[in-house]
Amino acid sequence: MSLTPQPVHPMAPQVPAMAREAAQSADAARQQITRCSGTFAELGARLRQHPPRFIITCARGSSDHAASYGKYLIETTLGRAVASVGPSVASVYNTPLDWKDSLFIAVSQSGRSPDLLRLTEAAREAGALVVGFVNHEDSPLMRMCDVGVPLCAGPEQSVAATKSYLLSGLAFLQLVAHWSGEPELRDAVTRLPEALEAARALDWSPALLRLAEARGLYVLGRGIGLGAALEMALKFKETCRLHAEAFSTAEVLHGPLALVGPGFPVLALGQEDNSAGSTRDVVRRLVELGAEVRSVLDVPGTEALPTVPGIPTAIAPLCQVQSFYMAVHRLAVARRLDPDAPPHLRKVTETV
Amino acid sequence: MSLTPQPVHPMAPQVPAMAREAAQSADAARQQITRCSGTFAELGARLRQHPPRFIITCARGSSDHAASYGKYLIETTLGRAVASVGPSVASVYNTPLDWKDSLFIAVSQSGRSPDLLRLTEAAREAGALVVGFVNHEDSPLMRMCDVGVPLCAGPEQSVAATKSYLLSGLAFLQLVAHWSGEPELRDAVTRLPEALEAARALDWSPALLRLAEARGLYVLGRGIGLGAALEMALKFKETCRLHAEAFSTAEVLHGPLALVGPGFPVLALGQEDNSAGSTRDVVRRLVELGAEVRSVLDVPGTEALPTVPGIPTAIAPLCQVQSFYMAVHRLAVARRLDPDAPPHLRKVTETV
Repeated sequence: MSLTPQPVHPMAPQVPAMAREAAQSADAARQQITRCSGTFAELGARLRQHPPRFIITCARGSSDHAASYGKYLIETTLGRAVASVGPSVASVYNTPLDWKDSLFIAVSQSGRSPDLLRLTEAAREAGALVVGFVNHEDSPLMRMCDVGVPLCAGPEQSVAATKSYLLSGLAFLQLVAHWSGEPELRDAVTRLPEALEAARALDWSPALLRLAEARGLYVLGRGIGLGAALEMALKFKETCRLHAEAFSTAEVLHGPLALVGPGFPVLALGQEDNSAGSTRDVVRRLVELGAEVRSVLDVPGTEALPTVPGIPTAIAPLCQVQSFYMAVHRLAVARRLDPDAPPHLRKVTETV
Repeated sequence: MSLTPQPVHPMAPQVPAMAREAAQSADAARQQITRCSGTFAELGARLRQHPPRFIITCARGSSDHAASYGKYLIETTLGRAVASVGPSVASVYNTPLDWKDSLFIAVSQSGRSPDLLRLTEAAREAGALVVGFVNHEDSPLMRMCDVGVPLCAGPEQSVAATKSYLLSGLAFLQLVAHWSGEPELRDAVTRLPEALEAARALDWSPALLRLAEARGLYVLGRGIGLGAALEMALKFKETCRLHAEAFSTAEVLHGPLALVGPGFPVLALGQEDNSAGSTRDVVRRLVELGAEVRSVLDVPGTEALPTVPGIPTAIAPLCQVQSFYMAVHRLAVARRLDPDAPPHLRKVTETV
C-alpha cells in the first residue's frame, strides 16, 4: 500500500454521475450530428417525397418528454398531427392497427423494453415507416427499425437519464430540420453543441437550492417547452423526492390554479416565440397570487433563471434542461438524498 | 318578512352544487342517448364508409380528460391513432395544417374558448371532418362543426365540472359504439344510465375522508382508465387544494416511484380488461413499499373502493368517476374549503 497521496480531482467527490454525464451532452451532440446527419438527410428526402399523413411516437419516461418536444416541433413546423400512443395498445390490448402512410418513431435508451418492442413490431405490420431513436446500438429495437438512429449519448450509468434526454431532443430537431429544410432549424442543429456548453456554465443552483424545504412545486412550459417542464418535474421527483408537477402554461389557469397561493413555488419556462406574450401574462397572474416564481422569461416580481442569450428559439428548451441538470443534484444533496440512487428505482424499467 | 318557518329540504344545505349536479348525470345520459343516437348512427355509417386515417382531439381541462378516455376507446377498438393537439398550435403558432382524411373532435362545455374555436376553424380548412361535443347548444363551436353533438348535460353552475365530463365520455362511447358496430359497446351505452345510478349510490367518502390531512397523492389509471385518474387528480386540486397527480399505472414505476414510501397515499383505478393483471402487479409493489393504497381492483393490503358489479368494462371508468364526484366534496369540507368556490377560479377560462 503506497503512502504517497493520490492525486484527487478537487471536484470529483462532489460531482455525482448524474451531473458528470449531463456535462457530456455537448460533446455527445457533436457526435450525433457528425454520425447521423447523413441518415437524417436521406430520411428527410424520403419524407418530403412521400409525406406521412400523421406521426406516432412511442416512449416512456424521459424519452416521452423528448417526444413531447418533438411533437410540438413537428406540429408547428410541418402542420402534421403527432399522436403519442401508449405501448400498452399493442402489448396489452392486441388491437389490429391501421397505420399506413404514417411515420412511427420509437424513442428508447435501452431499446429493450418488451412493451415498446411489441408496439414497434405492430407498427411495422400496420404499414408505418418505423424509425428508432435509440442509445444502445446493439439492441433489439435498433434491429427492428427501418431507420435506426443511434443517439450517441454514450454510456449512461446514472439512474436519472440526462444526456440521453437531450440527445433524443436533438434527434427530433435533426429530423424536423432535414424534413422541412427550414434554414433556421438547420442553423439550430449546428449551434446546439456550443449552446449546450454555454447552458452548462449557467448557475441555476441559487434558484433551486431554496426549494430545500419545499413540499410541492409546479413547473410550467408551453409548446416546444412543455417537454422541458415534464422532464424537470420528473427529475425533481426522482432525485429530490419533491412533488413537482408539470403543466402547460395555458392549462394551469384551469383547476391547478387552486393550489397556488402566497409562497407556492413555481418554475416557469418559456421561449421567445409566439407563445412568449401569453406565457408572461400567466406568470404575472401567478405573481399577483403571491406565488414564488422562478422564470426564464423576464417578468417583474420573479427570480430570473439565467439563459443563453441569442440562441435559436427551437433549442432554448434543450438548453434550459441542460442548465437544470447541472444544478438539480445540489438540491438532492440539500434534501439529504443521493441523486445517483433514487429510492426504489433501477436504470432500466421493463414494463408490459 | 314572514315568521313562518320555510320548508327546508333536510339535505339541501349540505349538498353543494357540485354533488347536486353530478347526481344528475344518469338522467342527462338518458337524454343524450335519446336525442343523439340518430346523429351518432349517421356519423358511424359515414365513418365506416370513409374511414378517417387518424383522429385529432382538441380540448382543455376536464374535457381533455374525457378525450383521453375516448383516445383509448378508439385506439383499442378501431386501431386508429388519436392525437391530442393543443389549441395553441393554431392560435399561437399559425401553422398551416394538412389534416385531410382525418376526424377532428373538439370537446367543450361552453363552446366559446377563442383558442379552441381557432383550431377548429383551422381543422376545417385543413380538410378534416369536424365534430363537436358541446354542452352549450347555442355556441359558436356548435355552429362551426360539420356534426355538432349536444352533450345534454343541462346547465352546470358549479365551477368544478362533473356531469359534463361524464356526458363527454358518453359521447365518445356512443361514437365508437356506432362506428365500430361492436355489440358489446352498444350494450355498454344502453346500460350506462343505470350503472351511473348504481355508482352514485356507492360511498367513497370513508376512503376519501382519511385524506383530510394529506399533502400529496397519486391517482393511477391505465388505458381507458387513465382519463378517470386525470380527472380525479384535477378535482382533488380544484376543490380540496390537495396536490394529487395522475399517472399511467405503467409510468409510475419509472421516476415517480421515488416519492412513494410508508403512508404515501395512492388511489388506484383499473378495470377488468387485459390491463387488470399488470395493474394488480403495480398495486402490489406499492403496497410492499408501504403506500396507503385505496384500490378499485381487489388487491390484498389495500382499502377496497366500492364499484358497480357486472357492468361492461368500457363504462367502468365513468362509473368510478361518478362515485368519486359524490364523495370528493366531503373531503373539501373536511379541509375547510367550499367545493363550489375553488380559490381563484371562474367557470369559463378563455385561453389564447
